[in-house]
Amino acid sequence: MISRVLSAELPAHVGERVTIAGWLHRRRDLKSVTFLIIRDRAGLAQVVLPAAATDALGEETVLQVEGLVVASEQAPGGAELTEPVLTLLSGRAEPPPFDLYRPAVTATLPTILDHAPTTLRHPVLRAGFEVAAASAAGFRAALTELGFTEIFTPKIVESATEGGANVFRLDYFGRPGYLAQSPQFYKQAMVGVFERVFEVGPVFRAEPHDTGRHLAQYTSLDAELSFVADHFDVMPFCRDAVAGMVKSVRERAGSAMQTIGATLPEVPAEIPHLHFAEAMTLISAATGEDVTGEPDLAPAHERWLGEWAAREHGSDLLFVTGYPLATKPFYTHGDPQRPRYSNGFDLLFRGTEIVTGGQRLHRHEDYVAALAARGLDPAPFAGYLQVFRHGMPPHGGFAIGLERWTALLTGAANVRQVTLFPRDLHRLSP
Amino acid sequence: MISRVLSAELPAHVGERVTIAGWLHRRRDLKSVTFLIIRDRAGLAQVVLPAAATDALGEETVLQVEGLVVASEQAPGGAELTEPVLTLLSGRAEPPPFDLYRPAVTATLPTILDHAPTTLRHPVLRAGFEVAAASAAGFRAALTELGFTEIFTPKIVESATEGGANVFRLDYFGRPGYLAQSPQFYKQAMVGVFERVFEVGPVFRAEPHDTGRHLAQYTSLDAELSFVADHFDVMPFCRDAVAGMVKSVRERAGSAMQTIGATLPEVPAEIPHLHFAEAMTLISAATGEDVTGEPDLAPAHERWLGEWAAREHGSDLLFVTGYPLATKPFYTHGDPQRPRYSNGFDLLFRGTEIVTGGQRLHRHEDYVAALAARGLDPAPFAGYLQVFRHGMPPHGGFAIGLERWTALLTGAANVRQVTLFPRDLHRLSP
Repeated sequence: MISRVLSAELPAHVGERVTIAGWLHRRRDLKSVTFLIIRDRAGLAQVVLPAAATDALGEETVLQVEGLVVASEQAPGGAELTEPVLTLLSGRAEPPPFDLYRPAVTATLPTILDHAPTTLRHPVLRAGFEVAAASAAGFRAALTELGFTEIFTPKIVESATEGGANVFRLDYFGRPGYLAQSPQFYKQAMVGVFERVFEVGPVFRAEPHDTGRHLAQYTSLDAELSFVADHFDVMPFCRDAVAGMVKSVRERAGSAMQTIGATLPEVPAEIPHLHFAEAMTLISAATGEDVTGEPDLAPAHERWLGEWAAREHGSDLLFVTGYPLATKPFYTHGDPQRPRYSNGFDLLFRGTEIVTGGQRLHRHEDYVAALAARGLDPAPFAGYLQVFRHGMPPHGGFAIGLERWTALLTGAANVRQVTLFPRDLHRLSP
Repeated sequence: MISRVLSAELPAHVGERVTIAGWLHRRRDLKSVTFLIIRDRAGLAQVVLPAAATDALGEETVLQVEGLVVASEQAPGGAELTEPVLTLLSGRAEPPPFDLYRPAVTATLPTILDHAPTTLRHPVLRAGFEVAAASAAGFRAALTELGFTEIFTPKIVESATEGGANVFRLDYFGRPGYLAQSPQFYKQAMVGVFERVFEVGPVFRAEPHDTGRHLAQYTSLDAELSFVADHFDVMPFCRDAVAGMVKSVRERAGSAMQTIGATLPEVPAEIPHLHFAEAMTLISAATGEDVTGEPDLAPAHERWLGEWAAREHGSDLLFVTGYPLATKPFYTHGDPQRPRYSNGFDLLFRGTEIVTGGQRLHRHEDYVAALAARGLDPAPFAGYLQVFRHGMPPHGGFAIGLERWTALLTGAANVRQVTLFPRDLHRLSP
């Protein structure tokens, strides 16, 4: 290993000669002295050398610097490296697309994305991915703690499980195959094996929409559990998953959150919930516009409910339950008391939906009836439905889009800012 | 929630009335009494009722059983449920493709795979997936502990990074796209951001080989780290990742390993290593066949080396270093002392390769030269190479195939036995 101390460890080595290594974050040439700021995964370190002691190495060049650690109030962390001996570890770097050392990101989103392998080195851009990594780890930890088993399911499937629109088609050894839009079928099947399962993995949507929240690939945090009475038994697990994500971001990406000036929500022990029909009544009363006949929440309604939850319950989070059955996929369990409504739920976070979940059908005959009621041919679903002939328990689950969650948490205006190398209608590289 | 105690908790409730819920694992009708064995995620529970007290519910039907817990030496765990009240939670189950209650798996592999959502309920088949889940968790935990950041990279790419053969092509909004064969480019790019990264995710190979170890999709455990002097600085991280996997399997899937009668390896603090050229000399001397001119290890050579490592070093694991450069991908770093050889390595586990890794090139001009030396057109690699113009540190990494690792660990003859819903030349469902 290249023997080195990290930038953040320098203050513990005052008076010693040590070696650091990292990127030349910034070079400042003054009259009599040159400062080199070296960036490594732990932060920044300052190196001082006589002016004109080095030729003009470009920023982002990778250097190893051996030198004497001296206490300095002006240096990051209170210590800097003097009497340095420099070794080049990379080739001489060409200038990055924008100055990575400036505190603010000065490039446009297309420039950032076109040059992502380099631009993501900027601390503000990098921070979002630290939040995403911590969120995924928190999701897994919370569910593992609750007895869930991780699964890895196929991403190439024979037919589109969720309906068929917006699916990528590929040549699978001479016959058609499709990229999975969700692990829905597989996670349901696997509650027949493990009772409680989760998956963190890519899902694919051939989204023709060119908006700030649509992606052709995103990371889905999926969970499914059995032996529930209804969707109200699924919601506490969803709450615990989100609480685990928040806890993990606090513990593991706290400084990233500080870098971007974002704040974490409090997750109540019980997240408040509201039935869709009540929500529509509240919105109608408040706005004077009768929306009680609408089949779904518009973005403006979600925002209104977000403000309502903050005002009435002091909560950034709100479950909306019982969406009309007609707007939900065919595998959604109906509400036995109010057949127009479903046992489905969404979780709103600061006025935007981040989770969709609910109870699923679990009896074979209910699936047959649901497909018939929607006028769907059961033939393409034969493989999906087979397992329900062999004894499946009542179950439900939910899915969280990691990138959308991360964008909301970090205040990113466009989900692409927190997606590593996003894929959309126009973008297939880098 | 359906209020229940798990089967394993029954002995703690002797004398109480409790509810259990699970699958009817087995039904045994004796002259005066009927035994129902209920399977849940914690194990098996026995229910006793008078003969002919229930109609003939089929095995795999999901039941809730409320009853009195009574100590019984004959029952699993030493307690059984009497005076039961049964409630059907699923529809009546059709018989599974083979008897899931028999200790041995009596179906052929095609039958198991065709009916995987049901057959994987068999404890022996399920065990492999518990080992896989524990292994993935151990990989992540070990690398997180070492300062690695998790990444989620695109699975649809503009061109094949690794060479171009065996790649799935798809229609990406009207232009060609390809499924990623590995996250190689992205993990290398991201060491420029985080220094140390890992990913656990699917990779895709349009493998025309119909063997027990080839899959069209598998789960790749990928790691990459920077500021290495050479591949000998990568190998300890690979060792720690494997040690983390073994530790996690021991802690979290110990009873699964017992169910299949498999044993875990000891991972030495330093895994023994051997240069490819030395390995060939040893094999030639031992077998009388001169293999010193061969460019790669044949499976028989790997087996011989596995036995050699066990005999000479008492180790199930052996690094083979310095494979000939010509057999390695163009991004492989050469051995500065012996240009015919690479700074690459494989890790053999019980005589089979489970990890491939090595040091990568990190200077732009070295990539240009490597492509030229192989007669490859640099144009398709322009996007890949761009980041190396902007200062990349010396780095290397490795990748472990989760399913192959799990198959070797559990003694599965065919990797499909430990792959959830495998994809191959012939199989695209379930």
